[in-house]
Amino acid sequence: MKVNNKSYRAIWVEGSTVCMIEQNLLPFEFKIHRCNSVDETCHAIKTMIVRGAGSIGAAGGYAMLQAIWENKNAGNLYSELEIAKQKIDSTRPTAVNLFYATNRVLEASKVSKEFAISEAYAIADECVEQSKKIGVFGNELIKDGYKIETHCNAGWLALVDYGSALSPIYTAFETGKKNIFVFVDETRPRLQGMRLTAWELQQQGVPHAIIPDNAGAFYMSKGEVDIMITGADRIATNGDTANKIGTLEKAIAAKYYGIPFYIAAPSSTFDLNTKTGNEIIIEERDEEEVLYFYGKNKENKFENIFISNPGSRAKNPAFDVTPAELITGFITEKGIIKPNEEEIKKLLTQ
Amino acid sequence: MKVNNKSYRAIWVEGSTVCMIEQNLLPFEFKIHRCNSVDETCHAIKTMIVRGAGSIGAAGGYAMLQAIWENKNAGNLYSELEIAKQKIDSTRPTAVNLFYATNRVLEASKVSKEFAISEAYAIADECVEQSKKIGVFGNELIKDGYKIETHCNAGWLALVDYGSALSPIYTAFETGKKNIFVFVDETRPRLQGMRLTAWELQQQGVPHAIIPDNAGAFYMSKGEVDIMITGADRIATNGDTANKIGTLEKAIAAKYYGIPFYIAAPSSTFDLNTKTGNEIIIEERDEEEVLYFYGKNKENKFENIFISNPGSRAKNPAFDVTPAELITGFITEKGIIKPNEEEIKKLLTQ
Repeated sequence: MKVNNKSYRAIWVEGSTVCMIEQNLLPFEFKIHRCNSVDETCHAIKTMIVRGAGSIGAAGGYAMLQAIWENKNAGNLYSELEIAKQKIDSTRPTAVNLFYATNRVLEASKVSKEFAISEAYAIADECVEQSKKIGVFGNELIKDGYKIETHCNAGWLALVDYGSALSPIYTAFETGKKNIFVFVDETRPRLQGMRLTAWELQQQGVPHAIIPDNAGAFYMSKGEVDIMITGADRIATNGDTANKIGTLEKAIAAKYYGIPFYIAAPSSTFDLNTKTGNEIIIEERDEEEVLYFYGKNKENKFENIFISNPGSRAKNPAFDVTPAELITGFITEKGIIKPNEEEIKKLLTQ
Repeated sequence: MKVNNKSYRAIWVEGSTVCMIEQNLLPFEFKIHRCNSVDETCHAIKTMIVRGAGSIGAAGGYAMLQAIWENKNAGNLYSELEIAKQKIDSTRPTAVNLFYATNRVLEASKVSKEFAISEAYAIADECVEQSKKIGVFGNELIKDGYKIETHCNAGWLALVDYGSALSPIYTAFETGKKNIFVFVDETRPRLQGMRLTAWELQQQGVPHAIIPDNAGAFYMSKGEVDIMITGADRIATNGDTANKIGTLEKAIAAKYYGIPFYIAAPSSTFDLNTKTGNEIIIEERDEEEVLYFYGKNKENKFENIFISNPGSRAKNPAFDVTPAELITGFITEKGIIKPNEEEIKKLLTQ
């Protein structure tokens, strides 16, 4: 997608360098970060210079590619890649896409070095291809003039290109639906909506406004939201969906006002090992994310400020689970399906 | 209520000085602000050193009291008070409680100076008395061990003492229900929950935690919220209630999970001139409240930092309207009533 009118992916390879958009600096600064070794790419994953399920997977694949190059004279490439995989996987111990990527390249190396290299490139390319298709299917749900609400960031920064929740919006806008408008939930505590989604939409020229999370139901009650689309972190076999904290609240409000509520996600997000949302354990993150705020002061310097009552503690659950009954449908790279076990299982065997 | 284990009201009179808690500095600093003239009290109302419907009303009454003292030798007290009233009213042109207070003292001055003085004192005292009764009635809804969620600040800072939504909580705690726990919605964009409600509860020793607004439905879904209580800005004749943005979203979530949702407010909050919530015009406030954050940096200095994508605009509706069908009941100083026209009209004629 575009940044300052030039096309970018969130992560790519130039020569032997893995390049990526420095996501920690967004939306305040746009900078390309370059990694010239496996170690440098690992560091970038660990420090969240690259973030988002798909982009982390791509980074894992590219890091394995660098490992192949760094071990070109190795007697036993497979065992060298095993060591590299361990190092790469340890950067984000809960990132399923990362393990998928490193494992795929490692397995391919059993066939040949050339096949391993092509697999390393394929991971990012397939992510882009899937995101593109999610956009094509999701676009059918959007009429020109629609007002669309979204939560958190499920855009191209997180999925190499296009994105999941934002891909239908980009596709709608690019195919001539120029009168769409996006309500961007700021997405407390970490403000990924206000910071990343708003930045993405602005760069792409899509009309939008940031709203406090508290204002979601208000705009729904005024008839100003035609459809809501979010991404997903994990989808259980029965359709219950874990996503950024606050998604559940929007889904309940959308149901109350009869507004279609869609989850956009590649089919790799469905987890047949999880029967229902009850099995999903919600990560409780550090309270400092709620009690402190990071931004730029008058002198344009970054500051981390304390914003709360000094004597009080905070709770910070990272995700919530939206029950399937509140979800209108899933927008996947294979089409749009209803949120039930039968359709989900059918999708995954296609 | 208590601050550092000493009892305070939000505003009071010492000699000829109107004293008030400097609410702009909370929760970072506790300071008493002293106003020695009508002009100084007007300035304090205007700059929100004193805020909240009841406390503003009390400030208006006390400012009129100062006007009486400043004009003790006036030939025509009434006409001097008329001038004072105009000056006081102009400090917060939308504060209904302020006009009520200044008008009440002005009218009383037609009877006698002494009556005007006693009315000026009575305004604050009646507010405290009503708040206390709201606590007594609301306490009946709270069992020991209950987890209570609240939104924004409807505590004693806003209502001279006790508060509306927080009064039942204080009463429950003081009458021995020591195992209650309060989920305090941070209440974006201005964080009155995180800053004022959390501060109040901490000073009173009531167990609580701040949660991002996004986490409300999550805790409800986990069965961790037994009752939700908020305040109100205006209640229409049919029970539709305007309150801080985000109240609507919580009410919808509470309904979905079958959690009792109460509004605590003195009967002066009901407005028979407003038939339904549709007639209530929602104020749109400055986007800077959403895009900037105020707090303390590492060096303990106050900073106002920019937190958003520089190229994006924000929307900032101040209130939303919760339809009567989502409200379990109103906790008033005259008892708890159901949210319908019949009960509301009966209440107002008691």
